[in-house]
Parts: sequence; C-alpha cells; structure tokens
Amino acid sequence: MTDTFSAAHQVLAWADALARHSEEPGRLTCTYLTPAHHAAAAQLQEWMLAAGFDSVRRDAVGNVVGRYRAAPDAREPALVATGSHYDTVRNGGRYDGRLGILAPMAVVAGLHAAGRRLPYDLEVVGFAEEEGVRFGGAFMGSSAYAGCYDPAVLDLRDRQGVSLREAMAESGLDPADIPAAAVDARRLRHYFEIHIEQGPVLLQRGLALGAVSGIAGCVRRVLALAGQAGHAGTTPMDMRRDAAAAAAEIVLAVERRCSGAPGLMGTVGQLEVPGGSINVIPGRCRLSIDVRGGADALRDAALADLEREIAAICARRNIEWSQEEVVRVPAVPCSEDGRRRWRAALAALGMEDFELPSGAGHDAMLMARVAPVSMLFVRCGNGGISHNPLETVAAADVEAALRAIRHFLDGLAQDDS
Amino acid sequence: MTDTFSAAHQVLAWADALARHSEEPGRLTCTYLTPAHHAAAAQLQEWMLAAGFDSVRRDAVGNVVGRYRAAPDAREPALVATGSHYDTVRNGGRYDGRLGILAPMAVVAGLHAAGRRLPYDLEVVGFAEEEGVRFGGAFMGSSAYAGCYDPAVLDLRDRQGVSLREAMAESGLDPADIPAAAVDARRLRHYFEIHIEQGPVLLQRGLALGAVSGIAGCVRRVLALAGQAGHAGTTPMDMRRDAAAAAAEIVLAVERRCSGAPGLMGTVGQLEVPGGSINVIPGRCRLSIDVRGGADALRDAALADLEREIAAICARRNIEWSQEEVVRVPAVPCSEDGRRRWRAALAALGMEDFELPSGAGHDAMLMARVAPVSMLFVRCGNGGISHNPLETVAAADVEAALRAIRHFLDGLAQDDS
Repeated sequence: MTDTFSAAHQVLAWADALARHSEEPGRLTCTYLTPAHHAAAAQLQEWMLAAGFDSVRRDAVGNVVGRYRAAPDAREPALVATGSHYDTVRNGGRYDGRLGILAPMAVVAGLHAAGRRLPYDLEVVGFAEEEGVRFGGAFMGSSAYAGCYDPAVLDLRDRQGVSLREAMAESGLDPADIPAAAVDARRLRHYFEIHIEQGPVLLQRGLALGAVSGIAGCVRRVLALAGQAGHAGTTPMDMRRDAAAAAAEIVLAVERRCSGAPGLMGTVGQLEVPGGSINVIPGRCRLSIDVRGGADALRDAALADLEREIAAICARRNIEWSQEEVVRVPAVPCSEDGRRRWRAALAALGMEDFELPSGAGHDAMLMARVAPVSMLFVRCGNGGISHNPLETVAAADVEAALRAIRHFLDGLAQDDS
Repeated sequence: MTDTFSAAHQVLAWADALARHSEEPGRLTCTYLTPAHHAAAAQLQEWMLAAGFDSVRRDAVGNVVGRYRAAPDAREPALVATGSHYDTVRNGGRYDGRLGILAPMAVVAGLHAAGRRLPYDLEVVGFAEEEGVRFGGAFMGSSAYAGCYDPAVLDLRDRQGVSLREAMAESGLDPADIPAAAVDARRLRHYFEIHIEQGPVLLQRGLALGAVSGIAGCVRRVLALAGQAGHAGTTPMDMRRDAAAAAAEIVLAVERRCSGAPGLMGTVGQLEVPGGSINVIPGRCRLSIDVRGGADALRDAALADLEREIAAICARRNIEWSQEEVVRVPAVPCSEDGRRRWRAALAALGMEDFELPSGAGHDAMLMARVAPVSMLFVRCGNGGISHNPLETVAAADVEAALRAIRHFLDGLAQDDS
C-alpha cells in the first residue's frame, strides 16, 4: 500500500504551488482564460504526466483531462470520471475545486507507482470554469465535458468588454472544437467529485468526511415592497405603511419556515431601504430570498408557504409587493449506488457513514445529465469558511479522503472483475 | 369684522407667489442665503409693509421681522411674537413654515385695515433658516432671535465648500450683528407658532385645527450588527449568525414597543446589509433608530426597554452590536397657559378642542428657551404629506386658523386691558 500520509502532503503541496498562479499579488484569484489560469492548467498537465497518467489533454474550453488507462486485459473497458474546477473566485481559497483534482491525481500516482491498473479507464478532469466570475456564466468546463455546452455563453463579456469568444481565440482555443470535448457518455459509468464541504457541518460533528446525499436545488427571488414614506415624527404608529417593517417580518418568516427541516435553507442576503433617511418612515424596501432544498418538493413547499405568508404580511400592512424569480435550479440527487459505495468506504475506514446534502452547486450537477454521480465532502477547517483565503483543510482529512477514494475505486473494480 | 374668507385666499395667494422664488425650476427649493432665499425675504418685507406693519427689518441672520405696534395708550407694552421659517427642504411644499408667517401677516393686515391696535407689540418673524439643508446646522433663524445662536455654525460649509461665514459676507450680513438680532426677552410675553401638521392625524379625525400639547423630544441612534457571513447553501440554519435576521427582530421590537402609547413613535428609517449578496448570509447589518416622545421620560423608558431587548436578541443570536447616539433633543412642552388659550379658541369657533403632540421639531423649540410657547396645527391635506410638492392646505382650514389666531390675540389682549 502506498504511503497515504506522504500522498496527502503531496496534495497540500500541489495546492500551495497551484495557488501561486494568481492575477493579483498576495491573494488567489484565478479566473477563466487569464494568464494565471493558463499557467495553472499547464502546471496541472505537467503534474499529471509526472504522476503516471497515460495521456493528458487540454480540451477546447481549457479543461485538463488526464486519463489513466484500464488494465490491458479489460475488455471494452468502461470509463469512470472524477474531477472538479481549477478556476477560483476573487481572493479565494486554494482547496475549493482544486482538491477534487489533486486528490484523485495523488491516488493515480499511487496506483502507477504500485504498477496497478483498474478494470476501467479513469479520467481525472480539471474543469476550467465553474465559478462564473469573469464572464458571468458558470459551469463552462463541466458543461463542455458533459456535452451540454451552450454556445450562447460565447457572447458573454467580461468587465473590460472582452467577449468569451475573443478570449478563447486569444488563448488558441477554437469553439468549433467544443463538441469534441464531450466525454463518451455511452462508456461513462460514474462520475464522482471530491470537494471541501465549504460549510461547518463536518467540523461541528467532528467528522473528516461525509457522503453527499444530493445537491440542493435553489430558487432565488428579489422582492420589492412599497408602502408610504412619511415623517418619523408626525405619522402615528397605527397610520404607517412601513415597508421595512414588512420586510423585517418577511426576513423572520423565511428563517422560521426554513428551519427545522434537514436540507432546507432560506437566506435573505440582500436587504435595503434605498436612500433611507434616519427620520423618514421607509416607503420602499428591497430584499432577496434564496431557498434551497435537497429535494425540489421540499423547497417548493417552503416557497409556496412563504409566498402566502408574504402576501398576508403585506395585506395586513397595506404594502404593495412584487417579486421576480431570478434563479431556479432543480436539485440533483446523488445516485443511490454512489451514496451506498461512499458510505461503505467510510465504514470500511472505521468512520461514521455520515451523509449530508450539498447546499452549494458543483460540477457534478452538470455531469448528472450524462451519468450517475456521487460526491464526497472533506471537512473544511476554520469554522467551515470557504471562498476566502482562510479556507483550509487538514492533512489528516486529505489522507482519509485518499483512502476513501481508493476504497471507492476498488469497489467499482470488484464489480467489474 | 374683516373678511376672513378673502384673507384666507390672500394667504394662499402669498404662498403661491412666494413659492416662485426657487433654486430649481419646476420645484420649490429655497435654502439659506441663496438668491431665491434673498428674493423670498425681500418679498416678505414688501408684503409686510403693504399689510400695515409699522416696521420691517431683516436682521443679521436674514430673519424678516415685522412689528405691529401696541396701541399708543399701552404703558410699557409687552411683546408677543409669532412666526415660522421661510427656508424649505429640497423640492418641498409651499406651506411648511411659511403658513406660520403668512397667516399672522393676514391677521395684522385685517387689524390694520380695521384701525385696531393690540395692547402689546406683535412681532411676526419669518425665520431665515430652520431646515438645516444647506449647511447642516438647523434652527439658525430662531436661535438668533432667541439669543442663543452658536457662532460655531459659522464654520459649517455647504456642498460646494462655501462656509456660512463666507455666504453671509456675500449676502451683506455681518456675524458681529447677530447678538443684536435677539428679541428683548424681558418684554417677550409669549411666542406662538402656526404650522401645518405635516402628518395625518387631523385629516383622519376630520378636524381643521388642533392645539399642540408639546414638541416631542427625539433620540437617534445608529446600530451596527456583526455576525458571521457565510454561504447561503452550506451553513445550516441552526449554525448561522445572521446579522440581518437580528436586525429584523430589532425593527419589529422598535415598532412594537413604540405602539400603543400616545405621543410615542419609533422608526427604523435606515436598514442595510452593506454589500449584501443574494447567496451570502449577512455578516453585517446597519440600522438607525429614531424614538420620539411628547415627554422625555416616556421616550427614555422606551429606549431603555429597547436597549435591553436588543441586547437579548443579539446575545441569543451571537451577534456583536454597537450603537452610537447621534441626536438627543429634549421634549419641549407647550405652556399650560398657551394650550388652554388655543383650546378655548377652538371651542369658541365651535370646533373640538383637540390636542395633539408635535413629532417634528419647530422654531418654537428654540423660542421656549426665552418665553412660554404654544402652537396651533392646521390640517395637512393629501394624506398628511409634507416636505413634498403634494403638500397642501385647504382655504377653509386657513380661514379657521385666522379666526383662531384672532381669538387667541384677543384673549391675550383682554388679560392686558
């Protein structure tokens, strides 16, 4: 057995080295098709080749795809894919996305060093774009690999006015080749993704790893409330139409309705009295609502209840209201088979076979369109903070993840043998 | 008896004509020491002289002071003063402040036309500055007349960087003369102020006029709440430290605590999650609290209760909080004698002798430092809206006010005779 201890340290060293490619000095910012992004891709290709992958390619959207071939005696071998993204948010953390590329790379390095092959081809993919930072559109890497790339995104422009199409041309990437970047879905047996949790659940439970039950769906709405502005000193309390007071009731209604149900979350992230004055009763208030649920029915039931409650609050307070739904993404369940395999891997390592939902979106959502998917979360240190330089992961937890991945791959291999 | 019907229309015509002096075309903006402001002052002086005032002066801060002398046989006549401000907010209404100058002017015009004198000198003052729009400092006119002008305000600057001192010099006003602008407080028997209500109370009660019980004191605080920002999808509801949810509880606590007690009002006019994102749990929230009460004890008891409640809300939610008190103005009760006289005037006119507190500040607050003060509110149309072009007052209500003023002045006269 390969030394998982030193392999874990290799993963952390890779993450440190990869973080040196940044658009901004002193912080990690690696957005799509920038020089830092190209440098990170080249670095991944170099490491993959050194680790023993048989072939490494950079596809038409910039995904870095390393293939570790099946054992020569495998007949019509299936394909198993894993990966995550190597782009980052601005001033991000070095493990978000990247851990899901580097950990499988370390496992392949171990297999190669031991002279072991699996009965299926294994592809480790560094997806070029997931965060949507530079051009707005997100999941560009995994959508290309999943064969569902939307060419409309090519016309998106960054803040400097550069279109994605222009940025690709400058990078020597040809949109005409994007269809060829798609994985052969007929051969693809499973896609799994390793990711830091980006939340505090595993940390608070004292667990290194957790199997993911599914990726929550998300609905986002923006509400505009209109009451009547008035003088704070001359309008008696019972004659007011205070838009902020109505908003306050809605904030608490969202919190109350989305508490207590596992996997359900509700957030009012934006809340503002536009141009509010200290001595004026708010005539207007604007707020956002983000509701997520591991199952769409759970989420939509909460949304329906909230809509009724908002209508009642506003009717009682004589407040006009409107809402715009700006995002609706369905939930993506992880495959039963994949979940069972990860729970078995955790149990085999002597760990609690804990499952949790993913509230954040991941490349696995796109991959679910063409294959069964599963995910493994790794404990996020520092209170669970992510999208932040304080994002961290412990070497021991990476080591546990590497062991779990091996167990997972071995399980798939046994079914094939 | 003079025709109060035509006098009321004269008041409205004056208000219309005065509103033509504005800094901005199509809206009424008349801030301190601008050309429009000087033109309004000159217009008031001209009208006062034509109405029969014996002397009209513009003092060192720009107040326009018309004096209607006591009957020649009055020995050591006392002085009664009345007035309000002629500056406006930006895009303001034409009756706010000005009604309190123009209505007494019309009464003096009627006295003069009838050849009547009162046993006391009557001064009608157009205060040059009350709103605090241009230089920030407010009540500059009445503070000079009351003899409590703070020379520190001379160093305040407007948005263009012009200091008040410079603006006065340009206007031919000499700060050295400000002390001479003070009324002779030893002779001043009473100050009363006519003002539109700037609220909906009289309108909703179907009353043209109301005596003012007192001017509410006001405390304003700005609160900063700090929780923990987090990913809206990865932080379970029971692990959150949501600053906006705490703010929502506070908004509703202010509303609840300040409801039900007559004269008490509480307003959260500013409410904001700075830089809030739709998918981020608010780590910070900022809000303002404005609490007013007809009596300081009433107001301070509410503030103390709210402070305890805020502390409890933030402790329960693990939110750090701080507050800064940015304004504390004590309540100014109207004199018992003045209140009794206005109620008597209302009753004499066959009206309900209704009293209400003033939640807004008025020049009478400054005058209370040197004399007993009283106020009469006139019904504000259009739902009680003020500081707005929609501000309006009915001719019939102005007529009622003119009759009430005459009754009030006659009552003071009878005591002197």
